[in-house]
Amino acid sequence: VVTDVGSVKARVVADVETLIASSGAAFVGSHPMAGGEKSGVLASRSELFQGAVCVVTPTPVTEPNALAKVKLLWQTVGARVLELSPEAHDILVSRSSHLPHIVAAELANYVLAPGRPPEQRELCATGFKSTTRLASGSPEMWRDIALANRAALVRALTAHRDGLADDGEALLQYFVQAKQRRDSLFPPDTANAPIEPCTVRSQSPASAH
Amino acid sequence: VVTDVGSVKARVVADVETLIASSGAAFVGSHPMAGGEKSGVLASRSELFQGAVCVVTPTPVTEPNALAKVKLLWQTVGARVLELSPEAHDILVSRSSHLPHIVAAELANYVLAPGRPPEQRELCATGFKSTTRLASGSPEMWRDIALANRAALVRALTAHRDGLADDGEALLQYFVQAKQRRDSLFPPDTANAPIEPCTVRSQSPASAH
Repeated sequence: VVTDVGSVKARVVADVETLIASSGAAFVGSHPMAGGEKSGVLASRSELFQGAVCVVTPTPVTEPNALAKVKLLWQTVGARVLELSPEAHDILVSRSSHLPHIVAAELANYVLAPGRPPEQRELCATGFKSTTRLASGSPEMWRDIALANRAALVRALTAHRDGLADDGEALLQYFVQAKQRRDSLFPPDTANAPIEPCTVRSQSPASAH
Repeated sequence: VVTDVGSVKARVVADVETLIASSGAAFVGSHPMAGGEKSGVLASRSELFQGAVCVVTPTPVTEPNALAKVKLLWQTVGARVLELSPEAHDILVSRSSHLPHIVAAELANYVLAPGRPPEQRELCATGFKSTTRLASGSPEMWRDIALANRAALVRALTAHRDGLADDGEALLQYFVQAKQRRDSLFPPDTANAPIEPCTVRSQSPASAH
């Protein structure tokens, strides 16, 4: 039984499934949703998959025994298994995973473009740091993901627009909606819980002009 | 001597400076770059301004004594003071602070739009969480900021585009550039430092379809 850990599934599954079946083995695609922006052996963690979602992507020709083995593998290392078709998986992660990466990269490239005044960097605080965190991931991996899931990602980029209403009521509704949708997914801490510090890094010397 | 703590300066300074001067006092605008997505007294912290940048925005008519007092105020609570004109301040923060907020709100609104399949939420991992963190901020405050700094923000939104090259070499350069620019601002930890856990929240029951 063969599986993989790629972030895009439809093309890989279509390419590999028949090939592996023809050699008498069985292929089931996997996408463990865990990892950080660091790579390499020194960045490994034994509890990496604990509590993580792992998507497995059976097709109509997947052998039930092979599927059961791959699911058991992921459950054994602590992951919660979700079954999706390869195509449904690719559409969902193009929104929740690949689109945020493009947005982070675009923001880093734009705000930190060459030629900005030196104060530009000093005004990049923790909000900018969070929003661009994904831009520090592996460029090679993200090139491959963007190429492999290009169709779904372009659909997500096109539908996602950076709009800005011009009246206060519409703007308020826009921000209220964004807050409600995110807070329903990641409930805010109670009011007196410790707050993440939100200060500007202070590496460069104070400058005045 | 009067100051303020607003996130947008040009309009406030223009409106208030003359008014306050006419009453015999002096106004100097301030923008302490510190705070979190929480608000209210229970979210206060005594070390909030330690190491934070605080922009002060003198104009050609600002009294040197008033400017010195306001700078001393911020330095006394631990902030690093940066002097900028109100207009320069507004352009710089439209990129590094206000644009990330719009991007975060747009991403939360789009990915978590009503009608998505239930698995969409389960595939929102820590990458999505970081990129959308700002969307949980105060909608009222962000409405006011978007209205007050609309001109600079629309310029930043227009220049910032969600592009996606269609060949591997161009994509790689795009992601390499984003990583280099961000890493030069927020240096990555050494390879064996602890990594921020990067797992999907696991509130909802496992579902298969």
